[in-house]
Amino acid sequence: MPNFKLIVEYEGTAYHGWQRQKDVPTVQETIEAALETMTGRSVKVIGSGRTDAGVHALNQVASFSVDTRLTADVFQQGLNSLLPPDIVVRACQGVDDSFHARYDAWSKVYDYHILNRPLPAAPYRQFAWHVRKCLDLDSMRAAMDCLKGEHDFSAFEASGSARSHPVRNVMDVNLTARDQEGYMVFTIEGDGFLRYMVRNIVGSLVDVGLGKISPKGFQGILVSRDRKQAGITAPAHGLFLRQVKYSARDASSK
Amino acid sequence: MPNFKLIVEYEGTAYHGWQRQKDVPTVQETIEAALETMTGRSVKVIGSGRTDAGVHALNQVASFSVDTRLTADVFQQGLNSLLPPDIVVRACQGVDDSFHARYDAWSKVYDYHILNRPLPAAPYRQFAWHVRKCLDLDSMRAAMDCLKGEHDFSAFEASGSARSHPVRNVMDVNLTARDQEGYMVFTIEGDGFLRYMVRNIVGSLVDVGLGKISPKGFQGILVSRDRKQAGITAPAHGLFLRQVKYSARDASSK
Repeated sequence: MPNFKLIVEYEGTAYHGWQRQKDVPTVQETIEAALETMTGRSVKVIGSGRTDAGVHALNQVASFSVDTRLTADVFQQGLNSLLPPDIVVRACQGVDDSFHARYDAWSKVYDYHILNRPLPAAPYRQFAWHVRKCLDLDSMRAAMDCLKGEHDFSAFEASGSARSHPVRNVMDVNLTARDQEGYMVFTIEGDGFLRYMVRNIVGSLVDVGLGKISPKGFQGILVSRDRKQAGITAPAHGLFLRQVKYSARDASSK
Repeated sequence: MPNFKLIVEYEGTAYHGWQRQKDVPTVQETIEAALETMTGRSVKVIGSGRTDAGVHALNQVASFSVDTRLTADVFQQGLNSLLPPDIVVRACQGVDDSFHARYDAWSKVYDYHILNRPLPAAPYRQFAWHVRKCLDLDSMRAAMDCLKGEHDFSAFEASGSARSHPVRNVMDVNLTARDQEGYMVFTIEGDGFLRYMVRNIVGSLVDVGLGKISPKGFQGILVSRDRKQAGITAPAHGLFLRQVKYSARDASSK
């Protein structure tokens, strides 16, 4: 059966995340409904992973198999004409039967946008967390260094999550300087992320920037593997899934 | 009577522009209503100029006079707690009686955001005009050079506008390169703008970028002073009033 890979951009504001749920709109369900309209069949779309309610994506990757004679180009054009404007299919290509958007993912890159200035924004306010007090970026950078490498990230997992396999490998972290308006971006690349892990890391890093936690204290939270040690969960609307990498070649690109 | 200067940021999506009109929501009216709540008086807010329906502003300037003992700080905090999240008062200061937001304006700087790539955006789609075909930036830059200086801009005025004083002085124009995602920004600074002038200039410049009009043809449009010669009006949602300058000192800043 033909197998297709999709690269999907979405604004998460109106959705309860990627994954299909009962009685609430999700991105997966919206794409599946459009594919059913095009093919007359029930199609299951597999994402590279969930994104939480309100989280955005620039290049979410998904795959689906369906008995069809439609080409990848027709799927892309058809989906983009059927989907609402907050979901855009950036690419569709036929792929090997064996390709699986979730199991084959090598790493994921998330961006978290913070607006750091006394006053909130009017335009773009859906896309960044507003932090009023001035953040000490040097402290944040000193703290976040300890995230790199393989660690048990239980301290940054959503409370109440299943506890199996809390070890993840973080390949890279970065924090840009504030731009003229006060926007800054925290980027993290890892082979996988626990539930709320990026948002919990950002919440605690902001506490470091505010002087509530020392860089050493941040490291202590990671080592403690205790969720109760960490700071708040940063809100969903600042988070973007920017890229999913599938091979060593992908992995060397930014 | 105390006179105050406001610097206001707004997302224009939900408003029929700055200026008060019958039966439709405007930014001016929304701020006036909040000031009436704070002072118990009817207050007239004077903007540096109109912005059209759907146009955004990062630093619109406005002024108002009211018989009050409230301080500028109290006005700023009070307005920001009363106004909806798509309007933010970035600054409020007491100013000389003689200050007038419209008459005293020295120049205005507008940014026009274009997304130039085959596919539209999902996040940020409210803030840029999507142009599918690849634009030739060199041609656009060659064309736009003729805008600098004092000219009769009738060719770029909204059709049906009053015809008095169509001469404006454009101090500067700039066009950034496309960024990684395909976003580019056209900037224009002038001592004033005719109705739809920026959007009509951008519409014709995009026609230059698409090869429909030559740079020389663009210059011909300007010289013709004939609205029928110019291209389409670029949509409102890509346009931002970025700055209003009030003195030579302001004027030397970007």
